Amino acid sequence: MAGETKQSIDNEAQIRELIDTLLAAVSAKDIEASLAMYSPDIVSYDVIGPLQNNGATTIRKRLNEWFSSFNGHIEFEFRDPQITVGENVAFCNGLHHVKGKMTDGKELEMWWRTTLCLCKVDGKWTIKHSHDSVPFDPATGAASLALKP
Amino acid sequence: MAGETKQSIDNEAQIRELIDTLLAAVSAKDIEASLAMYSPDIVSYDVIGPLQNNGATTIRKRLNEWFSSFNGHIEFEFRDPQITVGENVAFCNGLHHVKGKMTDGKELEMWWRTTLCLCKVDGKWTIKHSHDSVPFDPATGAASLALKP
Repeated sequence: MAGETKQSIDNEAQIRELIDTLLAAVSAKDIEASLAMYSPDIVSYDVIGPLQNNGATTIRKRLNEWFSSFNGHIEFEFRDPQITVGENVAFCNGLHHVKGKMTDGKELEMWWRTTLCLCKVDGKWTIKHSHDSVPFDPATGAASLALKP
Repeated sequence: MAGETKQSIDNEAQIRELIDTLLAAVSAKDIEASLAMYSPDIVSYDVIGPLQNNGATTIRKRLNEWFSSFNGHIEFEFRDPQITVGENVAFCNGLHHVKGKMTDGKELEMWWRTTLCLCKVDGKWTIKHSHDSVPFDPATGAASLALKP
């Protein structure tokens, strides 16, 4: 957008670093380190209901439940994130891949779509809006939980 | 982000106009007018599969099928879109509401989440990435198609 200016290269590098930090934090099930990437007033659309979640406190609750459902660490990947940066607004989309052993003994493996919308305030990027989902099959009404890229 | 500068006010007004144009185009089932809002290289995540769609030609195919499934016009609403604008990059999220009579005689009414990510190139905003979805219920694996805000 802004061309390959030094600023856009720096912004993209900062967002890649944020993503790497978030992936490491989720893998380690570190709630505080994960939450540090989100704006307090984030609006998030999650893979499971409700329709929307307002504020980082709902992210905290959700991460807490999600992390607790895994036995040990989580293999968490962001496949080929596409990052588009402006001066103070950016977005990033790609596919998340999760693998791990659940506390009920089952293995979870799943791919889903993720969109992160970010703002830079006082020199720091945070996630202001996130959208995570799987599509559904209109023939059955079931969520398509076993799709692979 | 950029504060209430003239540019950010102008950019927000341009994006509101794009959204209004898109809503009118979808309501009227006008494929060309809808497609004019999208970047040719758009990556879109749709409410139904596959995981991702690349390029505006897949949007054309999908709109064609979707529009054909309605008998008459579509009531199409974007409830309270939240717009965040930068100089050349912006995003917008909110809830879509659709109501209409299908060709099989059934009434469709549904709410879903939408995120539009936009870029301004040569003075014109287009949608470069879109993400539309409903959440699913982890207890049943069913898509939650009857949620209301």
